[in-house]
Amino acid sequence: MNTEEIVKYANKAKIKLMDLSTGKKNEALENVAKNIEANKEKIYEANKKDLEYAKTLVESGKLTQATFGRLKLDENKMRDMIKGIYDVIKLEDPSNKVLWTRELDEGLILKKVTAPIGVLGIIFEARPDVISQISSLAIKSGNAVILKGGSEANNTNAAIFEIITEALDKTEGFPKNAVNLVYSHDDIKKMLDMEGFIDLIIPRGSNKLVKYIQENTKIPVLGHASGICHIFINKDADFNMVKNICIDAKTQYPTACNSVETILVHKDFKQYSELKNALIEAGIEVIENPERFDIEYSDTIVTLKPVNTIEEAIEHINTYGSHHTDSIITKNSLEAEMFMNNVDSAGVFMNASTRFSDGFRYGFGAEVGISTNKTHARGPVGLDGLCIYKYKLTGCGHIVDDYVKNRKTLKHKDI
Amino acid sequence: MNTEEIVKYANKAKIKLMDLSTGKKNEALENVAKNIEANKEKIYEANKKDLEYAKTLVESGKLTQATFGRLKLDENKMRDMIKGIYDVIKLEDPSNKVLWTRELDEGLILKKVTAPIGVLGIIFEARPDVISQISSLAIKSGNAVILKGGSEANNTNAAIFEIITEALDKTEGFPKNAVNLVYSHDDIKKMLDMEGFIDLIIPRGSNKLVKYIQENTKIPVLGHASGICHIFINKDADFNMVKNICIDAKTQYPTACNSVETILVHKDFKQYSELKNALIEAGIEVIENPERFDIEYSDTIVTLKPVNTIEEAIEHINTYGSHHTDSIITKNSLEAEMFMNNVDSAGVFMNASTRFSDGFRYGFGAEVGISTNKTHARGPVGLDGLCIYKYKLTGCGHIVDDYVKNRKTLKHKDI
Repeated sequence: MNTEEIVKYANKAKIKLMDLSTGKKNEALENVAKNIEANKEKIYEANKKDLEYAKTLVESGKLTQATFGRLKLDENKMRDMIKGIYDVIKLEDPSNKVLWTRELDEGLILKKVTAPIGVLGIIFEARPDVISQISSLAIKSGNAVILKGGSEANNTNAAIFEIITEALDKTEGFPKNAVNLVYSHDDIKKMLDMEGFIDLIIPRGSNKLVKYIQENTKIPVLGHASGICHIFINKDADFNMVKNICIDAKTQYPTACNSVETILVHKDFKQYSELKNALIEAGIEVIENPERFDIEYSDTIVTLKPVNTIEEAIEHINTYGSHHTDSIITKNSLEAEMFMNNVDSAGVFMNASTRFSDGFRYGFGAEVGISTNKTHARGPVGLDGLCIYKYKLTGCGHIVDDYVKNRKTLKHKDI
Repeated sequence: MNTEEIVKYANKAKIKLMDLSTGKKNEALENVAKNIEANKEKIYEANKKDLEYAKTLVESGKLTQATFGRLKLDENKMRDMIKGIYDVIKLEDPSNKVLWTRELDEGLILKKVTAPIGVLGIIFEARPDVISQISSLAIKSGNAVILKGGSEANNTNAAIFEIITEALDKTEGFPKNAVNLVYSHDDIKKMLDMEGFIDLIIPRGSNKLVKYIQENTKIPVLGHASGICHIFINKDADFNMVKNICIDAKTQYPTACNSVETILVHKDFKQYSELKNALIEAGIEVIENPERFDIEYSDTIVTLKPVNTIEEAIEHINTYGSHHTDSIITKNSLEAEMFMNNVDSAGVFMNASTRFSDGFRYGFGAEVGISTNKTHARGPVGLDGLCIYKYKLTGCGHIVDDYVKNRKTLKHKDI
């Protein structure tokens, strides 16, 4: 099948998935987990092929050692992959939940009910364990999915995909073509053009990949291109808290999107130079006069910038930030509230490290991605973000003309 | 100011609007209502100018009589316009509502809080009363707004806009440049290009306008291009109910997006020809062999089509419909449930007219538009659709490293 056909079959599958019981979805997930467990060796073998070729790419400088590391599937990753599926089984089914019920009139009942979005397009880079994770989340939320993995992992991806498909096909009553895999860069282009057939694109990978996708499709894209997070140190901040939070936010995982890039320091905060020294001692390169403020270092580098007022800090963050996560350190809760209301970001924190911005830390049980969008889903996105809602109205022959001509009146009573 | 400058100033205003109290927003709205009341004559005068010019367009066949009618502001429309603002004052403020609170750990409290989207771009056609309605909804939800009205109503729009601006400027503490008006088709193009500065576009007008906008921007668009709604008559349906609902759904307001275009009839429904005659008697043109099924007649015309099974009906609707609103008439609630789960539309009804699909009838108090999108907002959209949320996290110096290194554990206790 070519990509267009795959997407069209996925559109047939999505309708059947919408109506599937939680039990059936969990049964399918369990079958997937068991089949991966039973076919580990096949996956390792395929992974070995990918690693051999990737090694030549590393040697010729075409692939970084980090990407090579992410590509390698060891026993730990395999165990996590299988455990991840069982974790998704335990999560609450986000679809077919009644959000509210309203009696519009006698015998005319309106329900707002969650529903799967439909067909997801997930484009990710060389981390083959993503395939089973994303497939599980799609199955649990009742969405069909088209996956495109990094080409460096093509053999591993194909092996895992085959094992997943085999397990789903064995699950009686589970629709065919719910989970799909495509391989080439050309397939990405085709996916991005299939507006109306793919309902949501989720890119998982480098800023460059995300930006490319955002710029080349009319399909809604869930994610963020960059994570330019800030910490603002108010004049009254406690030095020890400042030091701990800043070092955590920069060094705990420097390449994470929620790590800090710019620390803004109120001019009346007394220990500016002590802070600078503490950061340097922690192995952080401190830049005081950067050429640009809208840069994600993705490294143990931070910009340190004095500001005159909290308003200037807010203005700086709203101008140069990526609306991801920004934190204030202060004892003044009124000023903190003002900061949190006026900073237009998905996460606004007081006296906590920006690194907390994460679906697992927020308690969502799973993370689909972190969104800096202003519609649909914002911040860390859990299973709920893969659902929308529909309105179900049940009447007994009700017609609108009765209400327009005032023969009857709508009650609007929430029940 | 040119459009780019207007949008940039609106972006400054949006930050201040986010932090505004409900009281302040209501005060501003009341000032707007009073100022319109006090300046009615100015508005009628401006409207007269538009009508004079529009008359020449009607005479030369460049404008329909219907558009001319919508352009004309009479005392009824003026009264409704002012009443509409007081209605919005009464609505609950959709922003700054705490959706849930979770204790991540001792002293580390996460709140999910609703927040305005930011800057809305509203593009509408020749109905000048829309300006005050949309401005009120934007103000109440805390969004800045760029309005572009139909050029036939330029004088009226400018007069109303001036009166609104005057009232807002008089409201102490209300940010400048929250409500903005642009005039030309060129301005639309510029708006559609300002991704990242305009957060949501809402087109209100013809299918052609909506389609043009959807095809020419990367900014999320809330709305629907067409309303191709269906009624499926199951074999067991009661003839009187069928007749009443079908006639209501087609004749109650034939040009409305939620009126029916295609009636699918189960082959075992006995009174096919009686239904056909009843429709014709009600003044409806019945088409049995249309060239296409994906047409919105926007007139008292309906397609009547026999189907063999409920599955065939569902497949037809999912293929040719516009995912707006579709209804089943049946006594069989199991089949109705199957229909409602498998039809992928914003509204799925049982034994009720498709015309119920409407924000006011649903009890939202206001309607921003009806969306057939699969993300953010679907179906009739009320004030809530103009909001997103943000995460507010308050700690006491909490760092992530403590949790990664297992010195502490996250609790995730909802409070």
